[in-house]
Amino acid sequence: MGGRLSNGTEVELGGQWIGESQDVAKSLIAELGLELFDTYDSGDSALYVDGELQRFNTEGVWGLPPESAAEINRLFTLIEELAQTVSIDAAWDTPDAAALDRQTFDAWVRQNTDDALARRYVAMMIPAVFSAESPELSLLHFLFYVKSGTSWTVLISTTGGAQEQRVRGGTHLISERMAEDLGDRVRLNSVVRTIRQDDTGVTVEHETGSVTAQHAIVAVPQTLAGRMRYVPALPVGRDALTQQMPAGSVIKFQVGYDTPFWREDGLNGQVQSLDHAFNVVFDNSPEDASCGVIVGFIEGDFARRAEQLDADGRRDLVLTALVDYFGPKAAEPFDIIEQDWNAEEFTRGCYGGRLAAGAWTAYGHALAAPVGRIHWAGAETATVWNGYMDGAISSGQRAAEEILAYNV
Amino acid sequence: MGGRLSNGTEVELGGQWIGESQDVAKSLIAELGLELFDTYDSGDSALYVDGELQRFNTEGVWGLPPESAAEINRLFTLIEELAQTVSIDAAWDTPDAAALDRQTFDAWVRQNTDDALARRYVAMMIPAVFSAESPELSLLHFLFYVKSGTSWTVLISTTGGAQEQRVRGGTHLISERMAEDLGDRVRLNSVVRTIRQDDTGVTVEHETGSVTAQHAIVAVPQTLAGRMRYVPALPVGRDALTQQMPAGSVIKFQVGYDTPFWREDGLNGQVQSLDHAFNVVFDNSPEDASCGVIVGFIEGDFARRAEQLDADGRRDLVLTALVDYFGPKAAEPFDIIEQDWNAEEFTRGCYGGRLAAGAWTAYGHALAAPVGRIHWAGAETATVWNGYMDGAISSGQRAAEEILAYNV
Repeated sequence: MGGRLSNGTEVELGGQWIGESQDVAKSLIAELGLELFDTYDSGDSALYVDGELQRFNTEGVWGLPPESAAEINRLFTLIEELAQTVSIDAAWDTPDAAALDRQTFDAWVRQNTDDALARRYVAMMIPAVFSAESPELSLLHFLFYVKSGTSWTVLISTTGGAQEQRVRGGTHLISERMAEDLGDRVRLNSVVRTIRQDDTGVTVEHETGSVTAQHAIVAVPQTLAGRMRYVPALPVGRDALTQQMPAGSVIKFQVGYDTPFWREDGLNGQVQSLDHAFNVVFDNSPEDASCGVIVGFIEGDFARRAEQLDADGRRDLVLTALVDYFGPKAAEPFDIIEQDWNAEEFTRGCYGGRLAAGAWTAYGHALAAPVGRIHWAGAETATVWNGYMDGAISSGQRAAEEILAYNV
Repeated sequence: MGGRLSNGTEVELGGQWIGESQDVAKSLIAELGLELFDTYDSGDSALYVDGELQRFNTEGVWGLPPESAAEINRLFTLIEELAQTVSIDAAWDTPDAAALDRQTFDAWVRQNTDDALARRYVAMMIPAVFSAESPELSLLHFLFYVKSGTSWTVLISTTGGAQEQRVRGGTHLISERMAEDLGDRVRLNSVVRTIRQDDTGVTVEHETGSVTAQHAIVAVPQTLAGRMRYVPALPVGRDALTQQMPAGSVIKFQVGYDTPFWREDGLNGQVQSLDHAFNVVFDNSPEDASCGVIVGFIEGDFARRAEQLDADGRRDLVLTALVDYFGPKAAEPFDIIEQDWNAEEFTRGCYGGRLAAGAWTAYGHALAAPVGRIHWAGAETATVWNGYMDGAISSGQRAAEEILAYNV
């Protein structure tokens, strides 16, 4: 979904980065005649902790005391090793799946380090990636997601990672260009309530009519897929999965300034904070730097609390953080756009669905398995780059292949 | 829901016991002119473990080696103490709620005992109460549920506990008699899809019409409440709750024999097993013992696996277990009725919704809080006897009180 700051600058309200190794997304982007450019990544990153901004200019967590930084690096190394044991095609078949799925990621962290700063750092990073807190994820889900996105380092990196590039003109152009090709076959504002199927095909009933077809591909989050009625009713395992794959909690902000003034201070605009609710931000200025834009997020528990405030209260959270990160100039943006994904009736959370302890081994097998002529797609059903635009695209291709094979 | 064995004996396919201290249920039952009788509880109970039936005739777990039995009693004592710290009116306000909610119940058990038999015993008992496995519950949810039902001892006991009594003629008579009083105001077979509200009232739209009223009380499980569309859309927290309060997994069996022959062997029909899928059974014979009935359950992971079998395969699981418990006569029932609650489109699991790690503290506040003119009832929203018929009834009374107060 695209938005526009008051000066006309286009900014994404949803997914906006294209990462290293996201070849499926890159291929579609090229096919649609769109172009990529690099996320701004020159200068120092920073970590805000206990009232101070700690700058650092290479990978690592240098803003912390060396013993905590070493502890975090040790945890990340353990994660990378453990993640590589997961079967991303069938996480429930991973060696030792039951033991990995039984634990929350939080329990694993607590078991593996006593360092208070390391725990705080991880507690900040998990919502940054999952929009959920670490007790809400099973260790198996966490590891699956890490391997699905190549590695933890890739997931959290800009250059060389998931936040490496952006689409000229905005990622909404991807869906808009695809929709142009499809013409009036795309029906907007049609709330689907029931999908019927029999041996000959499907009927998709929406609030103002219906569509018949040979097959249906349901490409909404699993938690929303469960809200439609299916006739005949879905198998037990598939229904149960939709009952327990909730979306994360996130409010996204785009903050516009006259210039990307932090660049003059040698900052790349990437700040993480252990002290703030608005705790992960990036430079999201237009490629020509015609103005400055900071994009950032309030996630997990912080999002749940921020939703209790009014818009002014949330604006204060955002600007207080930005002044701490970038100085007093940050107090005067020319515009702030706020997008609460949890409040969108037909999204109800981001970045994607997660599975709590026990759920992958109990119901993971139903995540992408077709039910007759009904097929499941969307980023949550992907094996590679699950939760990302790349996974969304490949899942659609996989569903199309299922249908082609069905008809043979 | 009532069922009938082939000899005409009425048996409950759903909730069937009325427990000690379930005064709200008892009061309604009396008001409807119905009567209670005691669950058969004379003779020895038994525990089946490692291929042998161990009989015992008082409370405790005497079928196990004394050190394991002591360990189980120690765990249960810890549970009773910890449960009493929970605020059942607002579990999220319990002292130390965040720490209790962060852990799974499984993690707590593993942390508190190394005894393999004690762990196996707990792993059997948790699905018996929750139809879910211990990693699927937060410690806070487990403790809330225990205190809501008085105590762990009460939850798992027959005489003096939750399984103490039965309703003459079957519990379905409760809803049938209430429906008689309501006459044609009860609309069956009307699948509600949308609830609209404004300042003046509500419109409930079902598949073949609509009903207008001053208020609506939604008394289905939370996971199903989320499947209806609300206009305007529900607040974020309420919607999120419905995304993560899944139902447990259970298949209920009623097995009819010519006589309750186990009674002649001095058995009360109550057997638990650490070896079988069909691992919790009770004597459910008619009050006059005109035939013998065993009621039992396949729950949690066992239910998920049993659902992969055909009906004959599940019958084999049931009868193999019953022969191990009661001898060769158990191989020849005159009828078996199977009820898979997960397969019921408008139930989708039993005994009730559960909350995984983190969910009570994040979303518990939205469990029963009305949204304008929409009120939430059902056993899952109760503070006392949550998950039981008693809680269902009191929750309806609480919702009615909300409406009366609203109109004042």
